[in-house]
Amino acid sequence: MMFLWNGRLVQENEIQVSYLDRGYYFGDGIYEVFRIYNGRLFEEQAHLSRLFKSLREIRITLPWSESELSGMLNSLADTFGEKDGILYLQITRGAAKRSHLFPASAEPVMLGYCEEVARPVEQLKQGITAITLDDERWNKCHIKSLNLLANTLARQEAEDAGAQEAILIRDGRVTECTASNVMIVKKGVILTHPNGPLILDGITKQVVERLAKQSGIPYRTTGFTLEELMEADEVFVTSTTKEVMPVTMINGIKVCSGIPGVITQLLQQGFEQKIGLSAVPKATELLG
Amino acid sequence: MMFLWNGRLVQENEIQVSYLDRGYYFGDGIYEVFRIYNGRLFEEQAHLSRLFKSLREIRITLPWSESELSGMLNSLADTFGEKDGILYLQITRGAAKRSHLFPASAEPVMLGYCEEVARPVEQLKQGITAITLDDERWNKCHIKSLNLLANTLARQEAEDAGAQEAILIRDGRVTECTASNVMIVKKGVILTHPNGPLILDGITKQVVERLAKQSGIPYRTTGFTLEELMEADEVFVTSTTKEVMPVTMINGIKVCSGIPGVITQLLQQGFEQKIGLSAVPKATELLG
Repeated sequence: MMFLWNGRLVQENEIQVSYLDRGYYFGDGIYEVFRIYNGRLFEEQAHLSRLFKSLREIRITLPWSESELSGMLNSLADTFGEKDGILYLQITRGAAKRSHLFPASAEPVMLGYCEEVARPVEQLKQGITAITLDDERWNKCHIKSLNLLANTLARQEAEDAGAQEAILIRDGRVTECTASNVMIVKKGVILTHPNGPLILDGITKQVVERLAKQSGIPYRTTGFTLEELMEADEVFVTSTTKEVMPVTMINGIKVCSGIPGVITQLLQQGFEQKIGLSAVPKATELLG
Repeated sequence: MMFLWNGRLVQENEIQVSYLDRGYYFGDGIYEVFRIYNGRLFEEQAHLSRLFKSLREIRITLPWSESELSGMLNSLADTFGEKDGILYLQITRGAAKRSHLFPASAEPVMLGYCEEVARPVEQLKQGITAITLDDERWNKCHIKSLNLLANTLARQEAEDAGAQEAILIRDGRVTECTASNVMIVKKGVILTHPNGPLILDGITKQVVERLAKQSGIPYRTTGFTLEELMEADEVFVTSTTKEVMPVTMINGIKVCSGIPGVITQLLQQGFEQKIGLSAVPKATELLG
């Protein structure tokens, strides 16, 4: 297994994380998780654009251009082979004596590696369960930063409650989940939180928006309340590894009839067409 | 220079931070900065209590008791010698394959080291300048966690504006600063934000509260607004390294007459008596 380490492909034993890496004591860095289907990076350009947006937001300047970085990522993916997985990439501000101030001369530290991750086929068919929790995170969730303690605490709280995801509520409104965006369907309309500092602009969310528009399904970013969530016809979450994932139970209460909804399944079909793989039922069967 | 690494005193080259340390990719850990005066840990017990409180809040269980950890910290401080400095200690949840869920079997990773830090004598006499910024942090600021990106961004923004600290405002009320608590004096009364999830319960803040009570100075944790901050008679911040630090200018506007206030200086005097060192003018001179 090869690693991308500060611009070079190396073996694991060549990675040397400094205890003075600002990623280690401040979480001062950003990351992306790229999906790999059959050995190829999916939506690479969208992830790269967001990566550079995150870097700009926290004022880290990379010594490489987007196309240079793309070359490195594809070289790394080539070492992975024709499998399904993810490419994890993180960039920190670099190693320097601990001070809240940006260091004068630190070089960003980049780490990337691939990992086999199967599509969650069974969950895509059956759906997952979720709980709702207060959104305790900071006000710059549009930055895909390494400050993920709130996310891990909420995800663990969901696990402890026997659920697979936590849907986060801020001031009575649904923002997103610990590692995914969330959408509801009500009377044939898809609703999700508007982009801005309170959510991450998910790549799979972007794909779903395009699929909805292509299919003529109304898609509105006006957001929705906890009450509207609990009364939705369909609920699903989207993420790079969860894809378009039905949520069939929230806080122990069934979402509508408790099975994945038709619009959710239509979007799953469209998503599978895009990735060239198939696991969920055919849309034609659903429309009957 | 010696390091405390997972319970042992080691040389720097024995520290091996894993790229799979959850501190590195989630900021999943907590820390303390202990003050060392003349080679001795100051307010050690208060820092240790808070450390264990932070650990409990994020559900990390240490294999050592408070007294065992205290023994290790004092052994580390002994290697530092009779100087003024800090002891930095951080504990992460440990190394494990990246997953938001707590790992089943990871061991916490502990790193500690000492560093020479002089008392900011000139600033204690003259005061510092500050700006105000929106408090963008998460809602669990009582946990001294490694998720400090918001703090570093705000501190850098202050620096870029030529100021030494950023005073943070949430919903119109002053919470604290990027690495210190903040208090105002109005008509002889000290005001600061109440403890709770929006601020860290600073050890120096606790010392100031005790000093105020001993001196008969009214001390109220009712909080204050941005407007009250700008109209205060005195403003000061407190932290382990800043001690009781006068703020003489905020957003380019002088605090009252623009020099450290009398109550601030009285508290500085009391603080210096506690640490057995002296730099600021005598309280008796102030009271004349």
